[in-house]
Amino acid sequence: MDSTYIFKPIGIIHSCFKEKFGIPRQSGLVAAAQATLEILPPFDQDEAFKGLEAFSHMWLIFVFHGIPDGKWQPTVRPPRLGGNRRTGVFATRSGFRPNPIGMSAVGLTKICRVEGKLILYLSGIDLLDQTPVLDIKPYLPYADVIPRARGGFAADPPHPSLTVEFTNQSRQTCTELEKTYPGLSDLIEQVLQADPRPAYMRSGSKRTEFGMRIYDFNIRWSVRQQAIVVQTIETESKDPNGTDGEPSIVKK
Amino acid sequence: MDSTYIFKPIGIIHSCFKEKFGIPRQSGLVAAAQATLEILPPFDQDEAFKGLEAFSHMWLIFVFHGIPDGKWQPTVRPPRLGGNRRTGVFATRSGFRPNPIGMSAVGLTKICRVEGKLILYLSGIDLLDQTPVLDIKPYLPYADVIPRARGGFAADPPHPSLTVEFTNQSRQTCTELEKTYPGLSDLIEQVLQADPRPAYMRSGSKRTEFGMRIYDFNIRWSVRQQAIVVQTIETESKDPNGTDGEPSIVKK
Repeated sequence: MDSTYIFKPIGIIHSCFKEKFGIPRQSGLVAAAQATLEILPPFDQDEAFKGLEAFSHMWLIFVFHGIPDGKWQPTVRPPRLGGNRRTGVFATRSGFRPNPIGMSAVGLTKICRVEGKLILYLSGIDLLDQTPVLDIKPYLPYADVIPRARGGFAADPPHPSLTVEFTNQSRQTCTELEKTYPGLSDLIEQVLQADPRPAYMRSGSKRTEFGMRIYDFNIRWSVRQQAIVVQTIETESKDPNGTDGEPSIVKK
Repeated sequence: MDSTYIFKPIGIIHSCFKEKFGIPRQSGLVAAAQATLEILPPFDQDEAFKGLEAFSHMWLIFVFHGIPDGKWQPTVRPPRLGGNRRTGVFATRSGFRPNPIGMSAVGLTKICRVEGKLILYLSGIDLLDQTPVLDIKPYLPYADVIPRARGGFAADPPHPSLTVEFTNQSRQTCTELEKTYPGLSDLIEQVLQADPRPAYMRSGSKRTEFGMRIYDFNIRWSVRQQAIVVQTIETESKDPNGTDGEPSIVKK
């Protein structure tokens, strides 16, 4: 079969995650991780979404963007195996796959129009900002919940094992920012609890200082044994994507 | 965003369902519905599937083939609502969607080579024969099972409400065919229990005689109230797809 299939995004994600580092490794792991999905014309018709609000969760079928074409490998090294054991790409959810399609079950908070645009509000996401979305489907418990499923190497959820604290200074900054970014401290705490460091840095590495970007903030944190301390939260002086200063739709 | 994405099938489904009529309305509803997934070159590398067998279930991302391009409608009439109430296409799993991508959680029985081809054996499927598959992902219980999900109009599984019986003649034919098609009677019984009739034919219609195609057999059945009787099972005299007589990979 030599067929190919051409798909067009129906929407685009606006997420607090501007880079891969820090993104939860699956959806649902960080409840405080919210995003909006902006539906693009001609798909932004109210009636196409009629009845969707009755579902608490939905599937997003999306494109792992930013992965160069044709760059798939038969095996990858999933973080759950410590990042140093290779397994078949089809036995993982890695983005480096023949067709870079992802799926993610996210919470649906509300659907409404903002400045004329049709916007879906999402929770528990694991999606990079600007992710193109190809499809939305309701999560159907009777078909999608398989209680007897065995989970291979990833049978159990990754347990958060880190404590997260803020310095006085970073706590103060966070409290101030929460006036514009409600839930920011919960978000930072949950993302860090899940330990976003690559596996090879978790043991044996001498590195203790890290930075990550959430919304347009640089968050610097340090780790000693199983304890993370948020050191500083600073506004990016310059946004490499050129959207600095523009109101983000994900903000309230 | 004017981007488009081009995807190529990694495999193709060989299923007992040669036409839409009779296909279970979601995966997992008819346990006896088996199929094979033939992996196409250059994706048929053993190592790309290393570790997949440790998972009992996997997701297939596929294309609803045979749906003409550009034929989506903002609303559809899902069978679960009786087939006469319109709901938004994104609140359904209908194949008539902007990007005709489907997802299905199926059981994985085994992976092996048959005549040089890499074949995955599947159970509990809801897929038409010749369905192009774009991706395979492991079913991850910790991320994919959402116990608190509310299911909108399709909260509960459709309960089979029909009894299924065979005539002496059709039972005899079935027993004979089971030498080549093991589990055929279970399959026919489970498909019919789920009532494959379109909703508008279930009440008020005077039609009582139906036919459906499973493998290359024409199965004729009748329905009176809540009871189905399998009348005859006949081999198709002519296969419109031109594969008549060819050994099918789904057979054992």
